Amino acid sequence: MARPQLPGLDHLTVNTIFCIGRNYAEHARELNNPVPKNPVVFTKPASSLIFDGDSITIPEFTNEVHHEVEMVVAIGRDGKNIPEADALDYVAGHAIGLDMTARDIQSRLKEKSHPWDLAKGLDTFAPLGRFFPPSQLPDLSDTRLTLTRNGQTVQDGTTADMIFTVPNLIAWLSKHFSLSAGDLIFTGTPEGVGPVTKGDRLVAQLGENLSTLSVSVK
Amino acid sequence: MARPQLPGLDHLTVNTIFCIGRNYAEHARELNNPVPKNPVVFTKPASSLIFDGDSITIPEFTNEVHHEVEMVVAIGRDGKNIPEADALDYVAGHAIGLDMTARDIQSRLKEKSHPWDLAKGLDTFAPLGRFFPPSQLPDLSDTRLTLTRNGQTVQDGTTADMIFTVPNLIAWLSKHFSLSAGDLIFTGTPEGVGPVTKGDRLVAQLGENLSTLSVSVK
Repeated sequence: MARPQLPGLDHLTVNTIFCIGRNYAEHARELNNPVPKNPVVFTKPASSLIFDGDSITIPEFTNEVHHEVEMVVAIGRDGKNIPEADALDYVAGHAIGLDMTARDIQSRLKEKSHPWDLAKGLDTFAPLGRFFPPSQLPDLSDTRLTLTRNGQTVQDGTTADMIFTVPNLIAWLSKHFSLSAGDLIFTGTPEGVGPVTKGDRLVAQLGENLSTLSVSVK
Repeated sequence: MARPQLPGLDHLTVNTIFCIGRNYAEHARELNNPVPKNPVVFTKPASSLIFDGDSITIPEFTNEVHHEVEMVVAIGRDGKNIPEADALDYVAGHAIGLDMTARDIQSRLKEKSHPWDLAKGLDTFAPLGRFFPPSQLPDLSDTRLTLTRNGQTVQDGTTADMIFTVPNLIAWLSKHFSLSAGDLIFTGTPEGVGPVTKGDRLVAQLGENLSTLSVSVK
């Protein structure tokens, strides 16, 4: 399968999908995890991506799939060791996304100190909305992100509560990895994560209708 | 940066880089890890790839980078839920590769049950040799893989000692992830892993000169 173009940024093809764990203190606490001193970094394969109108598939080998609504940042320029002060020059756009997680599998992996890929990277586990340019975002440091499940609000947070800001994350990631145009950063989820079941309708939103994402669960 | 073509398989562009941990029992034991019941799966970003003649860069934030020589399998066709009996039909070629690992960082990540990406996915940490077609491999189930460091043999194993065979791995991975043409599978390392230092010359080989890979360390 060809790697998909980014919705709203058709000149960019998706490259590496970086994700940040435990980037909101209240979410770390709700899962009884310590608040990290450095960003917790993992990746998802491109095969996990789906888009607005698509369906999340719950595989038969998990009984506990959780929603995690997140702001997603698209990188527009190649860079390495990017200073925090320059980091926002590398951002091509923002979107809403979901970091779907098989929590039961993740718990078993964590018990053994194994990598998280089998819990986080499954097919359809990275629903992604449409990107819009940074100029349309009123305030990156205090943007609301919400998720409704079957019409009920289950997550309602703001990027103001991020532990590591977008410039922090770009600087940290680019110290370890050469970033490329088309890389994505899922920037972590606020509190309120919980299970989804077959037949659910999830609607995620960034800001006031800046990026919306509607997916079903099957 | 554009995603690279696979050396020897120029019609394929690298897609997801899957890696298998602890796939040789003696290697699991040498690091005091249990022999796994299911494959341990992680991924590397494309930015970690280098090729024959290139250099591994040791970053300043690690003091212990280990070599792990591995057979690498290239997937040539898209597939999901591939039966073991059909798995080899999906293989486009084999090569030798190195799964470079910042062992000190990995130990700290494992203490916290964090993902492994910051230890395994750094720039230059996936050196990759030239692929050759399956028809040229005398015996997939008993192929020698060796690594010399500054002319001295440090790893000398055979795929006969794999816990999970290539068909096992393709079936297992494709149960969890849709595989695509251009995906790679680093299939795990035999015993003998150890540190590299700046100025080292590493030469890895699969079979009798089927795929060789020579890289320096800087």
